[in-house]
Parts: sequence; structure tokens; C-alpha cells
Amino acid sequence: MVSVEEHAARVAALLSFEPGLEDLPLNQALGRVTASAILSPVDLPLFRNSQMDGFAVHAADVATVPATLPIVGEVAARAASPAALLPGTAVRIMTGAVVPEGADAVIPVEDTTTTDNQVSITRSRSTGEYVRDRGSDALAGSQLLPSGQLLAARHLAVLAAAGLDTVSVVTRPRVAVITTGAELISAGETPEPGQIFDANQVALMAAATSAGAEVTLARRVIDEPALLLAALGEAASVADIILTSGGISHGDYEVVRELLEPRGAWVGHVAMQPGGPQATAVFEGIPVICFPGNPVSTQLSFEIFVAPVLRALSGLPQARQSTRTLNDSVRSVEGKRQFLRGRIEGQSVTPVAGPGSHLVAGLAAADCLIVIPESVTGVALGETVEVWEL
Amino acid sequence: MVSVEEHAARVAALLSFEPGLEDLPLNQALGRVTASAILSPVDLPLFRNSQMDGFAVHAADVATVPATLPIVGEVAARAASPAALLPGTAVRIMTGAVVPEGADAVIPVEDTTTTDNQVSITRSRSTGEYVRDRGSDALAGSQLLPSGQLLAARHLAVLAAAGLDTVSVVTRPRVAVITTGAELISAGETPEPGQIFDANQVALMAAATSAGAEVTLARRVIDEPALLLAALGEAASVADIILTSGGISHGDYEVVRELLEPRGAWVGHVAMQPGGPQATAVFEGIPVICFPGNPVSTQLSFEIFVAPVLRALSGLPQARQSTRTLNDSVRSVEGKRQFLRGRIEGQSVTPVAGPGSHLVAGLAAADCLIVIPESVTGVALGETVEVWEL
Repeated sequence: MVSVEEHAARVAALLSFEPGLEDLPLNQALGRVTASAILSPVDLPLFRNSQMDGFAVHAADVATVPATLPIVGEVAARAASPAALLPGTAVRIMTGAVVPEGADAVIPVEDTTTTDNQVSITRSRSTGEYVRDRGSDALAGSQLLPSGQLLAARHLAVLAAAGLDTVSVVTRPRVAVITTGAELISAGETPEPGQIFDANQVALMAAATSAGAEVTLARRVIDEPALLLAALGEAASVADIILTSGGISHGDYEVVRELLEPRGAWVGHVAMQPGGPQATAVFEGIPVICFPGNPVSTQLSFEIFVAPVLRALSGLPQARQSTRTLNDSVRSVEGKRQFLRGRIEGQSVTPVAGPGSHLVAGLAAADCLIVIPESVTGVALGETVEVWEL
Repeated sequence: MVSVEEHAARVAALLSFEPGLEDLPLNQALGRVTASAILSPVDLPLFRNSQMDGFAVHAADVATVPATLPIVGEVAARAASPAALLPGTAVRIMTGAVVPEGADAVIPVEDTTTTDNQVSITRSRSTGEYVRDRGSDALAGSQLLPSGQLLAARHLAVLAAAGLDTVSVVTRPRVAVITTGAELISAGETPEPGQIFDANQVALMAAATSAGAEVTLARRVIDEPALLLAALGEAASVADIILTSGGISHGDYEVVRELLEPRGAWVGHVAMQPGGPQATAVFEGIPVICFPGNPVSTQLSFEIFVAPVLRALSGLPQARQSTRTLNDSVRSVEGKRQFLRGRIEGQSVTPVAGPGSHLVAGLAAADCLIVIPESVTGVALGETVEVWEL
């Protein structure tokens, strides 16, 4: 029996490949992660411009107010280079418009009155006021985004503002999901006694996607080594990581174990509940992470062993961990780490459903895992427990 | 000048439409929100089954241990209805397999030794142990998921386990984005003096998507009423909400204002920085929310007025709000709510860049907004401020 940490390290080592890069148009890059630091190709702002609708002036001309200046023209936001502003004159200017050479302050329109071709200015402004200097937000060559930045709207916005139309991001790990079990049927089929609907395919596809992966294949195979072999071959050609469920414990029909153990798989038992049986292998150069078939075991095994690695590869935040007060008392098996399902309420947490690995509805009703360490055989009401948010 | 609350209420009222419903296959429903409570069509588990690999027995036969029972057969996970188990006998059983009628406990294989056709049992088990009763996770007709559930992997898993292959979810609000401004150019073009790259289209598309909407149209129009009219008409035919940027302040080339004010738009000033100028309208029955053109103003206006409504419509969690210690001192204009950009570090927050509405790189470097109330003209280092996480 190996510890949770040992198995987590084994899985992480298997999945420690270098991610690839791809250039994406900005409007397809939301939620992706920069592959390198992005430097600005330009100064931002691109040119010195006005922060207000008002009048561009020489600040020295409004040192004493009220001051009245002739209006010599207008600079609209759409305008190209305006003529230099002579001292003793003012030019009407729109927000964002080029501040003419010579002008060094903008007087907001609300501090002015205009008559005919003259503007009266009631408040003094010093050099630079309401003028946005070229490069004052970012200089050409400076870093707009670091490497590993998870791209939200505001990050894409600055790339667009700098005139970029694509961004180099880390490729998503490609995941194939293979569920096994002769007892599994699809939605729409009528279950015979002993048959169950396959929940693991949907669960692993969604969980891998949530953790930043791209699911490139999903297959279900009955307990037939030739069929599993074919599915693994197909998966290895389109995926960076293969996930399987079922077929790894000690029964007589353990197809994953039968097929992969002779090919060098590690098959063993991890000191945890649920999810004890676990396995890892490499098939045609592709890492294969094998989970037990019980749907709760599969889902928690993914969350504990694979999700942290995928999130790190994808630059996604890890699940929040905290400590809470237990709203109940629970028992646990010595020597095994137990992952109970719970619901957070303020600073406390309440176990939901039981510890059974078949309680899929119970897991769906939970919003966290309550982690009971290996050395603990019971936690009393009101004691503190570690909680992982789902 | 209206308050932030007044304008937020105006926008929320305009966007208060009933969302539609759609049925999606489970593997397309990740991140979507249930349109109604989902009841289980079946008992879960579907049948009474074994929690362990081991032997199904009559518990009474193992009341005294060691007990030795003849092995009369085997129930594999794939097997259909096994024969009833006679008292005084045991049947080998796999995890998940149907527990035969008559049997009322399962003895884990590790508590047994087998010789020939007999099993010796070393530990007593009481009625029901290691037997998963039919319906013990969820009874047919009981609620698997509430209405409004944001669907994660574990929620899709329980629907799959219950044999469902689709789920009824709320449709995503359809958003059209129209950016305006004669000064705007696209990536790849060479900016003339006075021209800037359009950051608002990318920003609003990504922000709307992040808030749970589907962007169905994005157009950029120069300051030409006929072109804007055409874009609005196109948008109204494919969107539930139209967002515009630019063209709503008091200059001479305010195309959004010129076109929509005669059609009954509200155009005004909200007591906030950045983002003061705001407008709302209804065009061909579709709500139009108009933001100022400065990219930081547009992004924050979306975050403050539209994102909370979209998230609520989409069942997404709202931005986290908290109070933090300010790592700096800041000034603010009396009578306006200021939204500074900041970075959270532990329990404190540090302003990044300045308050200017053109600082797109500054916004990209931020991870929160620091909210300075209307009545406050300055916050000293070490004082407490309200923070909205981005």
C-alpha cells in the first residue's frame, strides 16, 4: 500500500511533459495561458493625447485666471497631426485627440466659457494636467503580460490596444478517456439486472475540460483485452494523456490490469478511501492513468491525482483549501486518508451522504471534500478539518 | 448626475428578460445552468449490489466465526440476476455485482480464506454490511440537482448515472458588441497620428463571454449615423443585448448619442470615475447599453453595470468582494465613486498605475478594483478599503 503523496508524485512525474505553443487570435484566447512574456510593440498611448473634452493651451498662459485666449481651431479625436499651438492661443480638443505641439495642458470644458472665437478660463492648470503622455501607460519593449498569465478580458484588451492580433499560448493537454466494464450501458438503453449507466465517461470528460485539457477521444470498452488494446492505440495517436476507469482491482475480469501489467504497468493500492486501487502505465509512449471503476472513486482520483497537474500545465488556479469546523462527528479507517464529501456553510462544513464510493448523487450535492488524515480514526463535532473546495 | 446605484438599477431593469431553455447533451453542458430541478428517473443504485470483492452470505451464518461455508457459485459485475442464495452457503461476488436474493451481507475477500469449494470467514458481519441497497443514493423521483445549478463534472456524472443523456439548461444571453469611433483601427493597420487600435471589441467580447453570454455579433463603425444604424439593425436581429462603446459624451462627433437620443435613449453622467458618461436605449425592442469609449471606462462600466446581471442570468458566481488594508494613500474626487485598479497581496491591496481611464496596461496588471465611496476624498495608508476581485 502506497501513500497518497507517493502516488501523486508518480502521476505528476508521468505527466511532466513540456507543453506546446500555439498562436491564437485574441478573440479565441480567453481562458488560455500565455506561453511567454508579451512585450509591447508600441508606446501606449501611441501619441500624446487629451484626457478631457476642452481646450489645449500653454499652461503658462493660464497661470493667472481668469484668462481669455483666442480659439484658433479644433482637434477632433479623428484628426491627424494638428498644427503646433502658438503661445497665447487655445485650440478646442476632444478626449483622446492629439495634443498639438507647444500645448502642455488641457482645460476641461466645464472650467471655461466661450464667446465668439474666445475662451475664458476660470481655473489655472499646471504643465501636463489632463495630458496623457505618449508611453505613459507602457513603453515599447516593456512587458504587457508575464509568461503563464491566464487570459481574462483585460489582458486581451491590452494586447489589442497595442495592435497585436494574436497571442502565443500554451497548448491544452490532449486527454483521451477510456471507460471499461462489461456492466456499463449508455443512456437510452434499458438496464438489465447487473447493468449500470456509464457515468465515468461524462465525468472524466467534463473534469478534464474543467482542469484545462482538451478531450480528443472518448471510448467505452467491454472487458475484452483486444478491444481495450484497440482503444488504447487509437487514444495514443490523438492524446498526450490517457485516462481509464475500471478493470484494475483483484477480480477475475480486470481488463486494464490484464493488458497493462505485462507491459510494465504499476498496479497497486493507495492508502485512501474512496479510490484505493490505482494504476499507471505508459502505452506507446503516452502516459496512462488508471482509476477504479466506482464513479465516486474515479472522480475523486482524478481530482486528487490528475487535476492539480493539469491545472498547473494550463495555468489555472488550484482548488482552494481551507480549514473548517466539522458540523458532525465522523469515523475513519486508520492508515487510510479519507475524502468525505461535504457542504461548506460559512466557517463550518457538514458531511453529505456517506463515505460509499457509489454515492454519485451524494457527490453531486457536495461542494467540497473533507480530508481526514491517515492517523485519525475519528473527528468529533466542532473539531477542525481540512477542506478542498470542488 | 445620477448615482452608480441608480444607473445599475436602470441597466438591470432593461436586462430583466426571461431566459430561454435548451436541451443539451451532457457532454456539451459543462458550465451551463439547469433550467429546472432534475428528478431521478430511476433508483440509484439501480439494484442491490456489493460494495466489495468477496462473498455474499446470510449474515446469520457468520454470527459466530470462524465459519466455513460451501461456495456455490460466483456473481461477476457483468452477470444478470443470480439465483437466490440458500442459507448456509456463500457465493463469490465482485464489487458492483447484484447481491443474490437471500444474501444480506458481503464478506470482504481479505477476511476470508478459501480451500477447494469452501470459504472460511474470520470476521463476523451484520445484516446489510457491504451491501449497497437499491435507491440508497437516490430514489426515483427524488431531486438530483436543483434548478439554477451551475453544472460541474460531478453534476453531469449523476445525470449520466441516472441514464439521462441530455439536460435542460438556461440559454446564454446573446450579446452583440458595437464599437464606435473614427479614430479606431484594426490590428495590422499602421496607425496614423490620432488613430488607435480598437481594444474595446476584444475586451467586450471576452468580458461578455466570461460573464456567461454568447457573443453573436461584433462590429466596428466609424462615426457615421447610417453605418451605426445598420449595425444596430443587424445586432437587434441576432442579440438579446447590444453593447456599444464610444460616442456618448458632449463632443461634436457623438454618433451613438446623435442616433439614439432622438429615439428615446437616456444619456447622462454617472457619479463615478472612470466611466462617467453612460447611456441606455432600446432599439427595435432590444436593450442597448452604451459605454464611454476610453477602454478602461468601457471595461469597468461593463464590470460594474452589466456583468452582475449577466452572471445572475447565467447562474455564475458574482465577483468576490472583501475589505483590505490599503498599502498606499490615495485621493479621490468628492461626489464620485472611484474605481482604482489594484493588486491584492494577502490581506492588503496596492493601487497599480494611476486613475486614468486610458491605462489599459495598468488594468491588465491589476487583479481587483479598489472602491472609494463618493463621500471620501482621501484614504490614508493602512486604512480599510472595499475591494472587488476581477
